[in-house]
Amino acid sequence: MPLLAVGTLAYDDVYTPYGEAKMIQGGSCSYIAMAAAQFVEPVQIVSVIGEDFKEEYLTDLKRRGADLEGVETIAGGKSFYWAGRYHDDMMGRDTLDTQLNVLADFDPKVPESYRRTDYIMLGNLTPAVQSRVLDQLDHRPKLVALDTMNFWMDVALDDLKAVLKRIDVLIINDEEARQLSGELSLLTAAAKIVEMGPKNLIIKKGEHGALLFEGDRVFSAPALLLPEVVDPTGAGDTFAGGLMGYLAASDDTSFENLKRAVIYGSAMASFVVEDFGPRRLRELDRAQIDERVERFVSLTNVAL
Amino acid sequence: MPLLAVGTLAYDDVYTPYGEAKMIQGGSCSYIAMAAAQFVEPVQIVSVIGEDFKEEYLTDLKRRGADLEGVETIAGGKSFYWAGRYHDDMMGRDTLDTQLNVLADFDPKVPESYRRTDYIMLGNLTPAVQSRVLDQLDHRPKLVALDTMNFWMDVALDDLKAVLKRIDVLIINDEEARQLSGELSLLTAAAKIVEMGPKNLIIKKGEHGALLFEGDRVFSAPALLLPEVVDPTGAGDTFAGGLMGYLAASDDTSFENLKRAVIYGSAMASFVVEDFGPRRLRELDRAQIDERVERFVSLTNVAL
Repeated sequence: MPLLAVGTLAYDDVYTPYGEAKMIQGGSCSYIAMAAAQFVEPVQIVSVIGEDFKEEYLTDLKRRGADLEGVETIAGGKSFYWAGRYHDDMMGRDTLDTQLNVLADFDPKVPESYRRTDYIMLGNLTPAVQSRVLDQLDHRPKLVALDTMNFWMDVALDDLKAVLKRIDVLIINDEEARQLSGELSLLTAAAKIVEMGPKNLIIKKGEHGALLFEGDRVFSAPALLLPEVVDPTGAGDTFAGGLMGYLAASDDTSFENLKRAVIYGSAMASFVVEDFGPRRLRELDRAQIDERVERFVSLTNVAL
Repeated sequence: MPLLAVGTLAYDDVYTPYGEAKMIQGGSCSYIAMAAAQFVEPVQIVSVIGEDFKEEYLTDLKRRGADLEGVETIAGGKSFYWAGRYHDDMMGRDTLDTQLNVLADFDPKVPESYRRTDYIMLGNLTPAVQSRVLDQLDHRPKLVALDTMNFWMDVALDDLKAVLKRIDVLIINDEEARQLSGELSLLTAAAKIVEMGPKNLIIKKGEHGALLFEGDRVFSAPALLLPEVVDPTGAGDTFAGGLMGYLAASDDTSFENLKRAVIYGSAMASFVVEDFGPRRLRELDRAQIDERVERFVSLTNVAL
């Protein structure tokens, strides 16, 4: 089963207490595609770049099994650029610079060959742009997942609520879940958010793991404890990519399989933070991933 | 197997967004004993009270199986008193008043009949007082657990380090683990803390569960999601009481059994926060506890 992924392809400058990395490959679609491609092929990408986007990054994505037919190159345009500095505790970060460039007028075009894909990952973008992708599909996919952020709750809440009615899995962090629902308790927050449309809610809690909700059922995935986090950039997108890649490959949207997918997504995220940008994802193989998934499962294993 | 518990018996005034409760039974030993008594009898208490401590609270503890021979009543003295107000998000709290009263000169006296007890819970107290309890034992117990807090790291670090060399299980929260070790990563923090003496470290993460460390092994216990937390007071002591009561009852200090004990402690803590003070603990029975333990285990249950 292919996976259709919509999001950004960008350049990032990242500063962390461990060092810095400049003009590296970034953007949600870079992380989603590199993580998902460990499980599924092709990853059909819908994105936009400027003429400045390095050919080697595109070649690498293709080599991993990405389909770039949906990547539009804007003549004379510059690619989306983000620069950020993480705090010493790695908990927060300051955005130093954001240049939307070609992203400012991004009008996603879903190629004919992608329009019957059953697994869709809508990376964090303007909610109206996420909707325009769904508008172009020829059918109702089996599973649509969406990532978003506080910013869209502040400036485009109506558009966000409109697209939430059309998706199956919402992937946000705990702070965003509280803002979207207006509830402090994540249990109550989840109940309110599920009423907004998505059947499943996944709440990412960073170093505290992730929660998966479906009806009355809750699954709590642990976080792997890491000796050090070098660069948290892309962890959320890598989680989403691993999750959706695993789901598309197994073509099974049951709660039990969603639980497994959350563990695979968590495992992928635990790798990406070990090095700057997507570097760690480049050298991964499936055996390393499976070994780490086993470690995740054994973390919570207890027999009464 | 009996459990020996050292700590405070106190009066609390508690203000939370859900209301207030004044002059209710408080203190670490109240929570530890009520939780542990669900599993083990007797719970041998070493503590100090003033003449003002309500007879009905003592009667209730006795009825649950507490041995109060080690509770000293200071003639003309007033019991320890604490008043606190929780923030709207229940994450933080302000101490409104602390009156040490009889606790100021607490010199714990371990009765003859307690001195060969094998399971010891040293509730949060001046580290030197915790040491004086161990000094009075006739043997090296099978398992000594200790609770402490930031305050003692600030004002009595040497005394704390001295008592850490004499215990088996340290129970602290994530902030305290970072302060004690000077490390940001909990994995690195745990490695450093274990070098200070305790074989096992348990890190409480509140709404994010708890971590248990032993050598290279880590167990991650989830937190139950609750629709509301009415009063977090005593959650940590209730966790410790449930944990140590379960361990003493099963008389098994293996890592596998410590994992189970963490789940039982977590279950007990999830009950106590549902109502003010120790009220919820008063009406609990073992069937309710076992049912909740099953819910904890199923929260993380996943088959690959």
